[in-house]
Amino acid sequence: MTDDPPALVALDWGTSSLRAFLMSASGRVLDTRASAHGIQHLPEPGVPGFEAAFAAICGDWLAASRVPVVAGGMVGSAQGWAEVPYLPCPAALTDLPGAATRVATSGGQEVLIAPGLVFEPEGGTPDVMRGEEIQIAGAIAGNPDWQQAATLVLPGTHSKWAEVADGVVTGFATYMTGELFAVLRAHSILGRLMSDEALPEDTHAEAFAQGVAQASTAGPGDLTRQLFGSRTLGLTKRLPGGVLADYLSGLLIGSEIVSGLAAQGDRPVLLVGSGALCARYDTALRQLSGRGAAATIDNPAPAGLFRLACDAGLLTPEPGNSDD
Amino acid sequence: MTDDPPALVALDWGTSSLRAFLMSASGRVLDTRASAHGIQHLPEPGVPGFEAAFAAICGDWLAASRVPVVAGGMVGSAQGWAEVPYLPCPAALTDLPGAATRVATSGGQEVLIAPGLVFEPEGGTPDVMRGEEIQIAGAIAGNPDWQQAATLVLPGTHSKWAEVADGVVTGFATYMTGELFAVLRAHSILGRLMSDEALPEDTHAEAFAQGVAQASTAGPGDLTRQLFGSRTLGLTKRLPGGVLADYLSGLLIGSEIVSGLAAQGDRPVLLVGSGALCARYDTALRQLSGRGAAATIDNPAPAGLFRLACDAGLLTPEPGNSDD
Repeated sequence: MTDDPPALVALDWGTSSLRAFLMSASGRVLDTRASAHGIQHLPEPGVPGFEAAFAAICGDWLAASRVPVVAGGMVGSAQGWAEVPYLPCPAALTDLPGAATRVATSGGQEVLIAPGLVFEPEGGTPDVMRGEEIQIAGAIAGNPDWQQAATLVLPGTHSKWAEVADGVVTGFATYMTGELFAVLRAHSILGRLMSDEALPEDTHAEAFAQGVAQASTAGPGDLTRQLFGSRTLGLTKRLPGGVLADYLSGLLIGSEIVSGLAAQGDRPVLLVGSGALCARYDTALRQLSGRGAAATIDNPAPAGLFRLACDAGLLTPEPGNSDD
Repeated sequence: MTDDPPALVALDWGTSSLRAFLMSASGRVLDTRASAHGIQHLPEPGVPGFEAAFAAICGDWLAASRVPVVAGGMVGSAQGWAEVPYLPCPAALTDLPGAATRVATSGGQEVLIAPGLVFEPEGGTPDVMRGEEIQIAGAIAGNPDWQQAATLVLPGTHSKWAEVADGVVTGFATYMTGELFAVLRAHSILGRLMSDEALPEDTHAEAFAQGVAQASTAGPGDLTRQLFGSRTLGLTKRLPGGVLADYLSGLLIGSEIVSGLAAQGDRPVLLVGSGALCARYDTALRQLSGRGAAATIDNPAPAGLFRLACDAGLLTPEPGNSDD
């Protein structure tokens, strides 16, 4: 492991944060850094701001060893360093480098910026992602079964459900679950009866399960009616104020999973993300389908960016790499 | 008509406003007043505040002719003049007086306050209304067909769908349509691409219809995914910012109607409310079911309060009354 020198700088550059990974040719993360210089929080506006944030987070790494640099996320959006057009689905993950854009810093350092994906389901509305495609690539890297067939669920403010078949992202959908929960709690009548009262863990879990169960009974269009239950269950003293937020969380996550599972066949479900939220999704998945996630994969962005760099021919993976 | 003296004071007393109707024994509205003294905006807290607001809006009417007084709405809630327990559904509209509560002012004037309704669908969550039961009673008063079978839709912040059979409210549901629209526009990412740009009326109507059409394609749980379309249609330039709110409105109203119609049989649909909003619902109803509302009924509260007073034996209706 001592002979595993730096071979890549990988940047996961989002709206509110920037993370940098110094990686070896075996795909190992040698060093990690994080900064608050998301694309909406640059030290100065425009290209000079991107260059300054870039130099601050990895300038010394690159001065010590001149390695290629790849980046993914909102850095490729219309508000980013350079706008990289969305690649339409179905899209092979190996096609990402071909749709990527190169920018060069004033110091002459090239940065390869990944595209996002766009999907237009027949009869539906267009959907977009930017950054999640890198996480998807990283999550299934090194697992031939998942590359062949998997449903990836990335819970969050705007949850993504993506289908992968034979290394191709065939389609995806965005659910506004996390944002809906936050705005309803903070700004709607549903928040009024909610309290921060701490109750036994079981009581919280039961209210969550009750919300999930309610979601499973829904017909088309029922959600806006069901939401009101988060108020009436409190009003009628069926649930204490301290667990009304759990009930609402269960209803919204359950609703997302009911819809998501209806679109997916027998593929294994992979949860991508961290701890507590993925655990809630896993619990709801078990409750609704009798089967939890095949795996929960935390922080797959470095592996996804590594794969992008390899597919772009920027480096040759060496043994020990998780992507071989 | 000159011999149609005052016989009733009817109060529609909500959260943010108070309306008073001086009515004759034929059910005619002789005079109408409105004040900002909703139960959350009283001139002083508690019972003295209710008495002061009451005296201010109709004290002179009662001094001139001592007639009975009935009231409906949030005035009967836990934060009201007196808490009147919810009457459980199925509930005959003629049972409202029996579940009403009498309060007396310090001046000795009795006020009969109507109860709200509660409904607990099997396997669902409890639902409540307070004030709408009066509007329902008023809307179907004088129409034997509707009293026998009707679905009443009261669009608004919290839309109500109520089923009436043989003069009995058999059940109802609340949809958070109006509030959801407002909080998503003001507080979520969906509002960011929306603009106030005025476009041709047809362009607004088409975007609304597109949202309704999208709602009609939904499976269970799909709404939180479909909501994101209000963003991506703007992002991908399919819709201009000036009509994204129309699209969202169509999606949410359409969603409500898809769910509401699934629960209702062949009953005529009555829209209760005023102008523009009911017109949107009527348009969406036609688009989704091929059939618009049987009628749109504006301001049925006086007729409902009149019926409450008659059923309570507070007055004997005379010919010309719309409730015979």
